[in-house]
Amino acid sequence: MASLLDPHARGRVILVGAGPGDPGLLTRSALARLRRADLVLFDALVPASIVGLARRARRFPVGKRAGRPSMRQQTIHALMIRAARRGQRVVRLKGGDPFVFGRGGEEGLALRAANVPFEIIPGITSAVAAPALAGIPVTHRGISSGFTVVAGHARASYQPVIDAIAPGSMTLVFLMAVAAQQGIADALVTRGWRASTPAAVILSASRDDERTWTGTLAALARGDGIFDTERPGLVVVGDVVSLRSRINISRDSAARDIAEGQPS
Amino acid sequence: MASLLDPHARGRVILVGAGPGDPGLLTRSALARLRRADLVLFDALVPASIVGLARRARRFPVGKRAGRPSMRQQTIHALMIRAARRGQRVVRLKGGDPFVFGRGGEEGLALRAANVPFEIIPGITSAVAAPALAGIPVTHRGISSGFTVVAGHARASYQPVIDAIAPGSMTLVFLMAVAAQQGIADALVTRGWRASTPAAVILSASRDDERTWTGTLAALARGDGIFDTERPGLVVVGDVVSLRSRINISRDSAARDIAEGQPS
Repeated sequence: MASLLDPHARGRVILVGAGPGDPGLLTRSALARLRRADLVLFDALVPASIVGLARRARRFPVGKRAGRPSMRQQTIHALMIRAARRGQRVVRLKGGDPFVFGRGGEEGLALRAANVPFEIIPGITSAVAAPALAGIPVTHRGISSGFTVVAGHARASYQPVIDAIAPGSMTLVFLMAVAAQQGIADALVTRGWRASTPAAVILSASRDDERTWTGTLAALARGDGIFDTERPGLVVVGDVVSLRSRINISRDSAARDIAEGQPS
Repeated sequence: MASLLDPHARGRVILVGAGPGDPGLLTRSALARLRRADLVLFDALVPASIVGLARRARRFPVGKRAGRPSMRQQTIHALMIRAARRGQRVVRLKGGDPFVFGRGGEEGLALRAANVPFEIIPGITSAVAAPALAGIPVTHRGISSGFTVVAGHARASYQPVIDAIAPGSMTLVFLMAVAAQQGIADALVTRGWRASTPAAVILSASRDDERTWTGTLAALARGDGIFDTERPGLVVVGDVVSLRSRINISRDSAARDIAEGQPS
């Protein structure tokens, strides 16, 4: 509840990155903000085990999920602003990092325009963590000295970035790419990437139901990848994918691997 | 200390990302691993406030620091392997994320070759967190639908990536780029980036002595940026940098901002 003296001194919004899903990959600052929150507005992909850490807060899902209606961005802005002006500590909880395709910039601009104080707590983006947990380093000496992260949910997002990058020059990570994986692989081969370039599809990274497929762009274009558009997932493309079988992370990964192909 | 019965059952290495420096940006899993560690081998850039969380461990710096001699990579591998084989829980603690220019892939391969069990705990990479904390979203609807992360410490690292990307097509983040900022700006303008493209230099992101400069590629090429090669720093290039003045994060940022230019 707000202070009776000066609610505005306390009211604020904290844009918090929840990381890829494993509650262990939440930061200490994010945990502290959740515990003190009065109101949590969370994206659909943030698991209940993280949302539930905000024990004293009212908690509302506002998030987007592939193919389902979601709250309008303007409505989210209005909710945050109204609650903060009432003196509440509002946590806007997002999967991954708030500024990596999280619309954190838009929310920051709206809060600033409304003169509502806000903070950013960065989170672990799945663009890096999902490959890492699957044993794929996005950079590796002698193989990849850079990586590009792009939204993979729609051709309008990924095609311009594919067009802008020389084939084979670096690691590519396509977020929100489960549904579009064949289109992405097609577009890359058309752009001049070798059909034998190693590729991976990673679903539900860091979660109990994590699944990883590896193969080639050719196999991905054929539809050999794994599809489950209800789950978060990404596509990694580049020679670093071939390190996965050699690094072979010691998690309970046997159970998580399905449809394992041979990168050539 | 190792179990007297079966030391090897317990010995293992955990490659842990410490994040950009603020102990609040450490993950809960990283903290748990540090508290249980017997031995911590840490990079020079990880602050004492994080290393010190490993209260019961022996703690050794093995890290690289610009321009100073550091332990050879092979020596680090040998230390980790030997300690794990003695049954110790070894944390290899790295700034940022182990797989983003952290040589985590090389260490993973060495551990696998030696048949030593290991885990990865991803960390928050400064490639995303440093811009975010400075009020710069690396992606933003209508401005940038992708970003590329590249090592900026040497021309041999950044030039091929600059060559591979169409000018103005996305946000670029150059890590370890403090010393090379003029060379990077020069290379980008030569490649065809507008001299008026907004750019930022961020030093010591998330730390008390964080400093941010913003300006243009032209100003950066002239040497108007901020230089302190003893401190970690990165360069961000792209139109998203111009959002910083509008987003204007509410931290104690006034004290952290110096030499603020006007992105044009």
